[in-house]
Amino acid sequence: MSWYQEPAAPIDTSMEAEAIAHQLSLTKPPGALGALERVATRLASLQGKLKPELNNIYISIFAADHGVAATGVSAFPQAVTTEMVKNFATGGAAISVLARQLQAQFEVVNLGTLFEVEEHQQIIDARIAPGTHNFCEAPAMDDAQLELALNQGRQAAERAVQANAHLFIGGEMGIGNTTSASALAAARLGLPAASLVGPGTGLPSDKLPFKVEKIEAALNLHTSTEAFEQLRCLGGFEIAGLVGAYIGCAQKGVPVLIDGFISSAAALMAVAINPSIQGWLFFSHESAEPGHQTILRALAAEPLLNIGMRLGEGSGAAIVVSLMQSAVALHNQMATFDSAGVSEKES
Amino acid sequence: MSWYQEPAAPIDTSMEAEAIAHQLSLTKPPGALGALERVATRLASLQGKLKPELNNIYISIFAADHGVAATGVSAFPQAVTTEMVKNFATGGAAISVLARQLQAQFEVVNLGTLFEVEEHQQIIDARIAPGTHNFCEAPAMDDAQLELALNQGRQAAERAVQANAHLFIGGEMGIGNTTSASALAAARLGLPAASLVGPGTGLPSDKLPFKVEKIEAALNLHTSTEAFEQLRCLGGFEIAGLVGAYIGCAQKGVPVLIDGFISSAAALMAVAINPSIQGWLFFSHESAEPGHQTILRALAAEPLLNIGMRLGEGSGAAIVVSLMQSAVALHNQMATFDSAGVSEKES
Repeated sequence: MSWYQEPAAPIDTSMEAEAIAHQLSLTKPPGALGALERVATRLASLQGKLKPELNNIYISIFAADHGVAATGVSAFPQAVTTEMVKNFATGGAAISVLARQLQAQFEVVNLGTLFEVEEHQQIIDARIAPGTHNFCEAPAMDDAQLELALNQGRQAAERAVQANAHLFIGGEMGIGNTTSASALAAARLGLPAASLVGPGTGLPSDKLPFKVEKIEAALNLHTSTEAFEQLRCLGGFEIAGLVGAYIGCAQKGVPVLIDGFISSAAALMAVAINPSIQGWLFFSHESAEPGHQTILRALAAEPLLNIGMRLGEGSGAAIVVSLMQSAVALHNQMATFDSAGVSEKES
Repeated sequence: MSWYQEPAAPIDTSMEAEAIAHQLSLTKPPGALGALERVATRLASLQGKLKPELNNIYISIFAADHGVAATGVSAFPQAVTTEMVKNFATGGAAISVLARQLQAQFEVVNLGTLFEVEEHQQIIDARIAPGTHNFCEAPAMDDAQLELALNQGRQAAERAVQANAHLFIGGEMGIGNTTSASALAAARLGLPAASLVGPGTGLPSDKLPFKVEKIEAALNLHTSTEAFEQLRCLGGFEIAGLVGAYIGCAQKGVPVLIDGFISSAAALMAVAINPSIQGWLFFSHESAEPGHQTILRALAAEPLLNIGMRLGEGSGAAIVVSLMQSAVALHNQMATFDSAGVSEKES
């Protein structure tokens, strides 16, 4: 058995029951905090603490290039992956701003940009190759490359544990990676490419058929129904990094907050490879990328936010952390009917 | 002309254009931050600053009782209004927890609880009467009472200006006030009560027809189509307080974040009384109360969050502040394509 097939950490369901009872004692009508109540009780159960904590946030951004991007499936040139890695590290990207706001631990794991990136304290140089192969012509990765990428994800999870993280967010950067994520979801869910493809960073609608065509070509070439093999043939280094990180976090007992379309495709693959991890995943938002809804439904996910974000980088997840922190503050700090002397509901 | 009919502060539309241009220069695909982009550019325009601020949040909770509540339209006894006023002040209520989290200025304006409340630093004792009249039998307020309540709202807006508030949130507490808010919306929008009524704090579904009946009785008794008169006959002191505060804030140039069902009904009345204020209002969330969607649609409002909250107290708005703060941080701190040396979209 490979490490990524080992079971996730057990979940304390008796603590969940205790947390639900606590919610019912707070000075508000039962259920009046909506989805925030379940965020708090799930965190209590995952952390095994009636009053969970949500201060230490660990954010790892996985970056890599995609062979298929050279064919012209993205609105941006491939150089942007490399340029954005630098922008993450120097603090100018959206996720850099949000990480500062959350006082989160923040790192960028370079799994294979097309171009060289200067050394930087926040960048881990773990380049496997200068991008994957074009999956229309060959498997995106070989076995060893996929194992390397998964392992880099696991190492990020280990660093999160070392940092006493209460929540892990994985982000991604890779020009062309909505093409890879759409291909993975199409293969996994047995759906036509056209039902999952969208504009990504802003591909004009007249170029969408070309993107669909590339994905259909890849799906015709790579026909395995086995999740690991699908990830190898159709994935990207950064997507595999996310898969490894999600599985690693669940095994080590760190709750994970999933970002948008790419991250959810990674979650879909991670759950297919290791179904035991599902209970450790929170879903943050529904993005504007049209295929996201299909993936979320397949995962029975109930994201908290739907405001048309479609940036990736872990940015949607980072935005949602503050909602979860409010959920925890309310759960931990509100008075009970007893302690505040407030009359309960009339029967 | 009464003070509440005077025009809202002018809005700097040239600054909005400048802010939109700034958004387009940031290192992300255009539009990729979804609704957060418009939050930032609207705030820039309202504050007249390319880089708006959103640190000082001012929260006023208006509390009062409703004559109609004695007939049994709520799941909770009327004593809860008074008990919750104390709970707000002593820090145990949901909005108290959220106000601390936001380091907001926080005050409770008691406009007329049924029972006495002990003096407390955070409670302003501005009781007009121990609750409104039962609007099934008489107008909820007389003219002088409505003027007093509106004025208390205006005074809260003045305190927010003194405190250099970047955003004002009005909250409310009043057992029975979904009944009053539903009646106001039904009257204002010319809709049957049944299309707006919901369970509020948790009225069992078999008691909803009774609530509808009370509202229909009031609508039959009070037939004015004039907003001020509708507010007087069907409103509550705390709802009128919110109306006065919203109008006052817009006149003084303080952006307002609207909470849930009751607050949106107050916004509907405020905009009817003084349409010039509309541009100063942000809408935070769509609540679980079924009539809320109808009111939001009537106001062309696009709330950021929809997670089944239905607590009132300003709590949904307080939850959404952190999303708006993220929007501002991204707008103010992200690098531009130029400054970060990132390639732009291919044409």
